[in-house]
Amino acid sequence: MAKHRRYFLKRPKSTTSLNQAPGTVTYVGRKEKAETTLEVIDYNADFYERYISTTPEDAFKFEEEDRVTWFNLDGLSNTTEIEKVGKYYELHPLIIEDIVNTNQRPKIDEHKDYYYIVAKMLYRRADGHLENEHISMVLGKNYVLTFQEAGGDVFDGVRERLAKGKGRIRSRGADYLVFALLDAIVDHYFIVVDEISDRIEALEEMLITAEPHKDTTLEIQELKRTMLRIRRAVFPLREVVSRLEKGNQGLIHENTINYIRDLYDHMIQVSENIEIYREMTWGLMDMYMTTISHKMNEVMKVLTIMASIFIPLTFLAGVYGMNFENMPELEWKYGYPAVWLVMLVLFIGMMLYFKRKRWL
Amino acid sequence: MAKHRRYFLKRPKSTTSLNQAPGTVTYVGRKEKAETTLEVIDYNADFYERYISTTPEDAFKFEEEDRVTWFNLDGLSNTTEIEKVGKYYELHPLIIEDIVNTNQRPKIDEHKDYYYIVAKMLYRRADGHLENEHISMVLGKNYVLTFQEAGGDVFDGVRERLAKGKGRIRSRGADYLVFALLDAIVDHYFIVVDEISDRIEALEEMLITAEPHKDTTLEIQELKRTMLRIRRAVFPLREVVSRLEKGNQGLIHENTINYIRDLYDHMIQVSENIEIYREMTWGLMDMYMTTISHKMNEVMKVLTIMASIFIPLTFLAGVYGMNFENMPELEWKYGYPAVWLVMLVLFIGMMLYFKRKRWL
Amino acid sequence: MAKHRRYFLKRPKSTTSLNQAPGTVTYVGRKEKAETTLEVIDYNADFYERYISTTPEDAFKFEEEDRVTWFNLDGLSNTTEIEKVGKYYELHPLIIEDIVNTNQRPKIDEHKDYYYIVAKMLYRRADGHLENEHISMVLGKNYVLTFQEAGGDVFDGVRERLAKGKGRIRSRGADYLVFALLDAIVDHYFIVVDEISDRIEALEEMLITAEPHKDTTLEIQELKRTMLRIRRAVFPLREVVSRLEKGNQGLIHENTINYIRDLYDHMIQVSENIEIYREMTWGLMDMYMTTISHKMNEVMKVLTIMASIFIPLTFLAGVYGMNFENMPELEWKYGYPAVWLVMLVLFIGMMLYFKRKRWL
Amino acid sequence: MAKHRRYFLKRPKSTTSLNQAPGTVTYVGRKEKAETTLEVIDYNADFYERYISTTPEDAFKFEEEDRVTWFNLDGLSNTTEIEKVGKYYELHPLIIEDIVNTNQRPKIDEHKDYYYIVAKMLYRRADGHLENEHISMVLGKNYVLTFQEAGGDVFDGVRERLAKGKGRIRSRGADYLVFALLDAIVDHYFIVVDEISDRIEALEEMLITAEPHKDTTLEIQELKRTMLRIRRAVFPLREVVSRLEKGNQGLIHENTINYIRDLYDHMIQVSENIEIYREMTWGLMDMYMTTISHKMNEVMKVLTIMASIFIPLTFLAGVYGMNFENMPELEWKYGYPAVWLVMLVLFIGMMLYFKRKRWL
Amino acid sequence: MAKHRRYFLKRPKSTTSLNQAPGTVTYVGRKEKAETTLEVIDYNADFYERYISTTPEDAFKFEEEDRVTWFNLDGLSNTTEIEKVGKYYELHPLIIEDIVNTNQRPKIDEHKDYYYIVAKMLYRRADGHLENEHISMVLGKNYVLTFQEAGGDVFDGVRERLAKGKGRIRSRGADYLVFALLDAIVDHYFIVVDEISDRIEALEEMLITAEPHKDTTLEIQELKRTMLRIRRAVFPLREVVSRLEKGNQGLIHENTINYIRDLYDHMIQVSENIEIYREMTWGLMDMYMTTISHKMNEVMKVLTIMASIFIPLTFLAGVYGMNFENMPELEWKYGYPAVWLVMLVLFIGMMLYFKRKRWL
Repeated sequence: MAKHRRYFLKRPKSTTSLNQAPGTVTYVGRKEKAETTLEVIDYNADFYERYISTTPEDAFKFEEEDRVTWFNLDGLSNTTEIEKVGKYYELHPLIIEDIVNTNQRPKIDEHKDYYYIVAKMLYRRADGHLENEHISMVLGKNYVLTFQEAGGDVFDGVRERLAKGKGRIRSRGADYLVFALLDAIVDHYFIVVDEISDRIEALEEMLITAEPHKDTTLEIQELKRTMLRIRRAVFPLREVVSRLEKGNQGLIHENTINYIRDLYDHMIQVSENIEIYREMTWGLMDMYMTTISHKMNEVMKVLTIMASIFIPLTFLAGVYGMNFENMPELEWKYGYPAVWLVMLVLFIGMMLYFKRKRWL
Repeated sequence: MAKHRRYFLKRPKSTTSLNQAPGTVTYVGRKEKAETTLEVIDYNADFYERYISTTPEDAFKFEEEDRVTWFNLDGLSNTTEIEKVGKYYELHPLIIEDIVNTNQRPKIDEHKDYYYIVAKMLYRRADGHLENEHISMVLGKNYVLTFQEAGGDVFDGVRERLAKGKGRIRSRGADYLVFALLDAIVDHYFIVVDEISDRIEALEEMLITAEPHKDTTLEIQELKRTMLRIRRAVFPLREVVSRLEKGNQGLIHENTINYIRDLYDHMIQVSENIEIYREMTWGLMDMYMTTISHKMNEVMKVLTIMASIFIPLTFLAGVYGMNFENMPELEWKYGYPAVWLVMLVLFIGMMLYFKRKRWL
Repeated sequence: MAKHRRYFLKRPKSTTSLNQAPGTVTYVGRKEKAETTLEVIDYNADFYERYISTTPEDAFKFEEEDRVTWFNLDGLSNTTEIEKVGKYYELHPLIIEDIVNTNQRPKIDEHKDYYYIVAKMLYRRADGHLENEHISMVLGKNYVLTFQEAGGDVFDGVRERLAKGKGRIRSRGADYLVFALLDAIVDHYFIVVDEISDRIEALEEMLITAEPHKDTTLEIQELKRTMLRIRRAVFPLREVVSRLEKGNQGLIHENTINYIRDLYDHMIQVSENIEIYREMTWGLMDMYMTTISHKMNEVMKVLTIMASIFIPLTFLAGVYGMNFENMPELEWKYGYPAVWLVMLVLFIGMMLYFKRKRWL
Repeated sequence: MAKHRRYFLKRPKSTTSLNQAPGTVTYVGRKEKAETTLEVIDYNADFYERYISTTPEDAFKFEEEDRVTWFNLDGLSNTTEIEKVGKYYELHPLIIEDIVNTNQRPKIDEHKDYYYIVAKMLYRRADGHLENEHISMVLGKNYVLTFQEAGGDVFDGVRERLAKGKGRIRSRGADYLVFALLDAIVDHYFIVVDEISDRIEALEEMLITAEPHKDTTLEIQELKRTMLRIRRAVFPLREVVSRLEKGNQGLIHENTINYIRDLYDHMIQVSENIEIYREMTWGLMDMYMTTISHKMNEVMKVLTIMASIFIPLTFLAGVYGMNFENMPELEWKYGYPAVWLVMLVLFIGMMLYFKRKRWL
Repeated sequence: MAKHRRYFLKRPKSTTSLNQAPGTVTYVGRKEKAETTLEVIDYNADFYERYISTTPEDAFKFEEEDRVTWFNLDGLSNTTEIEKVGKYYELHPLIIEDIVNTNQRPKIDEHKDYYYIVAKMLYRRADGHLENEHISMVLGKNYVLTFQEAGGDVFDGVRERLAKGKGRIRSRGADYLVFALLDAIVDHYFIVVDEISDRIEALEEMLITAEPHKDTTLEIQELKRTMLRIRRAVFPLREVVSRLEKGNQGLIHENTINYIRDLYDHMIQVSENIEIYREMTWGLMDMYMTTISHKMNEVMKVLTIMASIFIPLTFLAGVYGMNFENMPELEWKYGYPAVWLVMLVLFIGMMLYFKRKRWL
C-alpha cells in the first residue's frame, strides 16, 4: 500500500489544549514547521512592489492608502508575531485564536470593518503527499491578510498575474483579490478530486485483472476516510462563498459579485463530484468482495473437477488391488485393458458432465 | 464488457485552466471537434428562412424586428467567434466563459434583457455511444442563441416543425422556441433512462441464467457511475425549469407558462425514473453476490457427494489390498462378492442420505 | 418464478412520441385495448339513471342542471372521441394530452371552473395480474369526468351505492363523488400492499425451510422494483389529496373537507406501510445470502468430516498394502486385527473431536 | 424461534371494508375479543367514585358538573354501543369510524369543544405476548373518554393514584388526566424498547458463542419488522404531543403545559432509542454473516490440513504398493523403515508449514 | 475483547418509575454512588474562596451580592438535599425531577430568572472506563448551580483558573462561568472521539495483519453502539449552545456571545468528526468480511493445489497396484522408473498450471 499512501489525507492531530482558558492563542498544528516568513505585495493598476520580511513591523510601513496591500504570513507556530499583526489591524482576540487553530473548519465571520474567512487548501506537495493546509484570510477595505500553516501554497498563479499585470486583477480592489485567492483554492479541489477519481478507476481495474491483495481492503478503507475528510474541508466553504455573495456591499463591490456567484457554481460542482466519488468508493468494497468470491468459485471448481474425476477411478484401481483369492476378473485375458476401458469411459463421462455444466 | 461500453457515460476531462485569470475564455472540452458552424433560422407565422454560415458577421445581417431568430452555433473550440457573438448580443463576459466551459452544470441566470440557460443533452450518437453534450441557450426578446459543444443534437424534430409550420411553434415567440428545445432535450432523457433500464433487466437475466463473468462486476460499477452522471446532468435542470415557470413575465408569455409547467412534470417523472433505476443498479451487486454464492454452493455439493461416497469405498478396497499373511476374509469363497455387496449397500445408503438432504 | 409473476408491476412502455409538437394528443399506453365505451350516471337524491353509449354526443344530452353527472370513459386509444369530450367541457389542450399520456404521474391542476386530477389505480385483474391503470378525473360544478385506460376498475362499490342509494352519496354533490372514487382507489392500495407483505413473509419462510432456488434472487429483485413502482404511483397522490383539502371552497363543500382529511390519513398510512415493506424487501437479499452461506457451511462440514475420518484410515491401509519384502507386521499373527483396532480407535477419536466441536 | 416469538409485533390484519360507504362504522380489529365493558370514574379533589357498567345509558347518569369524569370503554366490536356514546357526547361520525378503525395511526383532531386523540399502547400481556393496542381519547371540558380495543391496559398506575388521591391528579382537571394517561403510555414504550435492546444484545452474544441456527436469520428479520412497527406506532405521537402543547388554551390549562413539554422530551428520548436499536438490528445480519463465514473458515482449515498432510503420504504408500517386478527399493533391507522415515519427515514438515501460517 | 471493553459506553439502565405520579423526584441512576458532597466557590476579580460542605444550609450563607457563586453538587441519590437547593433557588418542580433523571437528554429550558441546561460529560475515569455522566446546570443572575451524578468531572481546569485567577474568568460574570464549563465538556468530547478514532484505526490494522478472531465482530458491533450513544449525548447539545447564543440578553452578556459562538463552532466540528468515525465503523464490518473471505480463499488454494497434484498421482500408483495376471507393463524392465517419470511430468505440469494461474 505504501506507494499509494500519498493519495490519503491524514487525520490532523488535534492536540487540544485542555484545562486552558478559552481565547488563549495556542498553535495546535504540526510543530516541525517553525519558520515564519512575511510577504507583502502592494499594488494598484499602475504600481507593483513585493517585499519579503521577517518582522511585521517592517512590513507595516510599506502600506499606502491608494493601493491594495496583500499581507501573507507563512508558519503559525510563532504566535507572538501573529498577535502583533492582530493588534495592528485591530482583530478580535478570538480571531487570533482561530488563525492558529488548524482544526478550525471553514467559516466566515462578518465584522464591522472586515471579513474573517477560514478555508482549507488541498494540494499535492513536491514530495507527492496530499496536503490539507489551514488558511485564514482577513478582507479589509484596502488590504488582504492571509495566514498559512506553512510555506507552499496554491497562489503562484495569482502572484504571477499580480506581478505581470495580467487580467483585471491589478485594476480591482481587495475584494477581487480575495475572490482570486478562493478561486485558486477551489481550482485545486477539482485537481485533487480528479486524482481520487483516477485512483478509484485504477483500483476497479486492478480488482478485476490482478490477484486481490489483502492490503487492498485497507486502501479502500483509507480512501473512504480521505473522501470523508475532503468533504469536510470542502463542503463548509460553500456556505462561506454563499455568504460572501450576499454580504455587506461596502466590502464587496457590485461587479465582483458576479465572479463570486461563478465561484459558488464551481463549489457546487466540486461538491457533486465528491459525492459521486464517495458513492463509488463505497461500491469498491462490494466489488472486491464479489471478486474474491468469484476467484474462490474458480478455485473450488478446479478442486471439484479433479477430485470428482480421479476419486472414482482410484476406487476402481483399489478394487482390483484387493488380494482376494477368488477374483475371477483378475484372471481374464483382457481384464486389464477392460478396466482401462471402463476408466476411460468414466473419465469421458465426467468430462462431458462438467462441460455441460459449463464448469470447463 | 467491450460491447456494452456504449451504455456508459465517461467522466468529462476537466482540464481546468490553473493559474489563469477568472473570466478568461478557455474551451475545456474535447479538442478533436474543431469545426465551428453557424445556423440561423428566421421565422414568423408567415415567413421561414434558414442560413448556414461560418462567420457570425454574415449571420447578424439577416435579423428582422418582427421575426424570431434562432441562432445556433456548433463547436466551441473557436473562442474568438463566440466572443464576437457575445459582443454583438451584449452578453456578460462570465457568460462567454460558461458557454465554453463544458463542465458547467445546468443553471439559469436571469439578466435584465435575457435569460442564460445551461443544460446537458443526453443522446445516442450514430456510432452508438452515449453522448453528454453541453448546451447553452440565451433567450432574448425576439431571438434565441444556442451554443453546442459539437455537431449533432436532439433538435431535428424542432427544425422540422419550424420548416413545415407544423403545430403552434411558428406562431409563437422566442420563449416557446426555448420551451420546444428544452422539451426535446427532456424527451431524450426518457429514452436514455429507458435504455439503461433495459440494460439492467438484461443484466439481471444474465446473472441468473449465464455463468457469471468477472467483467460483470466492472460493468455494474460502470453502470452505477453512469447513473450518477446522468442524475447530475438531469437533476439541476428541474430547478432551471421551475425558475423559468415563475420567471420574469416580460420574456415568458403567459400562455407559454402552461407548457413549461407540463415540462416540469416531465422533469419530475424522469427524475423519479432515474432514482428507481439507480436503486435497482445498487441491487445488482447484491444479486451478483448471491448468484456466485449459489453457484459455489452447487460446486461444493458435487464435490462433497463424490468425496463422501467414494472415500469410504476406497478405504474398504484399501483394507483388502493389505498384505497381511493372516487375513481370513481373503480366503473366503464369496469374500470378493461380499465386499462388492457391502460397497453397494454403502453407496445406496449415502445416496439416500443425500437425497433426504435434498442435495441431489 | 413464473407463478409469482403476477405479484410484479411491469415497467410501462413509454413510447414517447419524439420529434412531435408538444400538446399533440397521442395515446402512449397499451395498444391492444382498443374499445372505447362511455358510461353516464345521472343522479340526485331522488333520481338515478345510467346509460351506456359509444359516442359522446349521445351522452351529453342526458345532462340536467339539478343533477350530478358522472361521465366515465374507458379506453384511451380513440383520441378523437376524447378530444370531443374535451371540447364540450372546455378543457385545456394540455389536459387532453395528459389524459391519454399514461405515463403522467399523479397530480392536481386547479383551473378556474374545474379541477383536473391524475391518479393510478392498483388492483388485481380477473386473470390475477397486478394492474397499474392510469386514471384522470375532472371535477366540475355538477359533473365528474373520469377517463380510464381500459375497462375494469375499482369503482363497483361506488356504482352500487349510487344505484341502491346507500350511504350519503346520492344526497351529496360532485365533490363527494370524487372523494368516493379516490377513497375506492386508496382502499385498493391497502389490499395490494398487504398482498405484497404476504408474499414477503412467504418468501422469508421459504428461504429458511426450502432449498434456495436461483430464481429466488430474481424474484426478490423484481419485488424491489415493484415496491419502487407502487411507491411512485401512490406517493404523489398524497400531495393531490392534501391540495384538495385546502382547495377552492367553491368546488369542495365544507362538509366534504372532513372526509378528504380522513382520506389523507389513509394515504399517510398506506405510505408508511409501503416504506416498511420496502425495507423488508431489502432485507430479503441479506437473508437469502446468509441462508446460502448457512447451507454451504453444512455441506462443507459433511465433506470435512468424511474426508478427515477416512483419509488417515485409507493411508494406513495403503501402508500395509506396500510390497516391501521386509515388513515384520505383515507376518504377525494378530497384525490384521491389530490394524483394525488402530483404525477403530482413530475413527472414534475423530468422531469425538467433531462432537466436541459441535459439528455433529 | 418459538420461544422468542413474544418479542415480535404481528401485522394487524387490515380487513379493510371494501365497497362500503366512507363513514360506515365497521370494526376491523381482532374478532375474538367480543366483550364490551364500561368503567366510569368520577372525581374531584374531595370525591372519588368508580362504576362498572355494561350499557352506556347507566354510565351517563353519574356525571356531575363540578367533577371530572373518566369514561373508559373496553372492546370495540360492539359498534352500536360506541355510536350511542358518540351521540351522547356529540362526536363527529368520522371520529366514531376512527375509534373502531384499529389501523388508524396516532393523530390529534382539534374540534371546537373537544380534542380527539389516537394512540397506540405497547405493552406485554400476562401471557407474555407483545401487544399493540389501539386507543382513542376524547378530551372535553370536564370529561375524558377512552376507547380501548380490549381489556387490559397500561393505566393501572393512574387508576391507583386516582383512587388513593396520590400526587396532584385529583386536584387537576381533565387535561391533566389525559396527560397522565399519555405519560403512562410513553413510560411503557421505554420498557418495550429496553426489552428489544436486551434481546438484541442476547442475540449478539449468541451469534458469537453458539452455533448459528438457521432460524436466527428469520428472527433477525422479524426483529427488524418489529422495530419498524414500533417506530410507526410511536413516532406520530410526537406530533400529537407537540400539538397538544401548543394547542387551544381553553382545554389545556397553563400549568399542565409544562408537564406536556416534559412528556414531549420523553417522546424524543424514546424515538432516539428506537433509532439506535433499529440501526443495531440492521447490524445483526452483517454480524451473523461474518460469524458464518468465520465458522466456515475454520471448517475449511481442518479439511485442508487433514487432506494436505495425508494425501501425499497415501500417494507414497500407493507407490510401494505397485506390483512392478523390478522395484529395487522393495528388496532393500531397510526399505520399509526408510519409507516410514520419509513419511514422518513429510508429516512434520507439513505441520510446521501450517503452524507458520497460524492455521493450527 | 475484555481489554478493549473500556472503549464502550454502556446503556444506562432506565429504571423508569412506572405507575408513579409525574413530577415525583426519583433518582434513576447508578445506586452505588451514594455520597452527596457540596462545593461552593465564591469569587470576583479580587476575591476567591472555596468551601466544602455536606449540607446545603451551610453553603447558602456564604453568598454575597457582588460575587459570583458556583454551587456544585456531586451525587444525585440523596433527593431531599436536592429538593432543599431547589426550594432555596425557587426552581420549578419538573427541573428537580430532570436533575435526578439521568436519562434526560441534553436540553435548555429558558425560565424568567434562570436558564436550566442539561448536558452529558464524556470522559475517561481513573480506572480507564469511559464515563457518560449526566450534568445539570442552572445559570442565574450571579450564581451557577451544577448537579453531577457522581464525583469526578472535567472541570479541574476551570477550578484551577478560578483559584489562580488565570485568564479572564475571574473578572467576568456567571454567564462566562457556564461558558467555561460547557467549553471544558466539549473539549473532552474531542478527546473521547479521537480515542475512538485511534481504536478504529487499530482495528483496521489488526483485521489485515492478524488472524481474525470471532470476538472482533462483537467488538465492532459494540463500537457502533458506542458511536450511536456518543452521538446521542453530543448532538442535542448543539441546539442548547445555539439557543444560548441567541438567548435572553439579560443573562448572557454581549461580550460572552462571541465565546459561545466559538463554542458552537467546536460543537459542529466534533459532530462532524462523530459522523466520519461512525461511517468508518460501519465500514469495519465489510472490511472484516472481505478479510475472512480473503483468508478462506488462501486456505482453499492450498487444498486445491495439494489435492489436484496428488490425486492423479495416487490414481496412477493405484493402477499399477492392481493384481491382474496379464499386465505387461509390470514385467517391463524399466516399467517402474517409467512410471516415476510419468508422475514427475504430471507433477511439473500441474505446478506450471497453478503458477500460470498465479495461485502459487
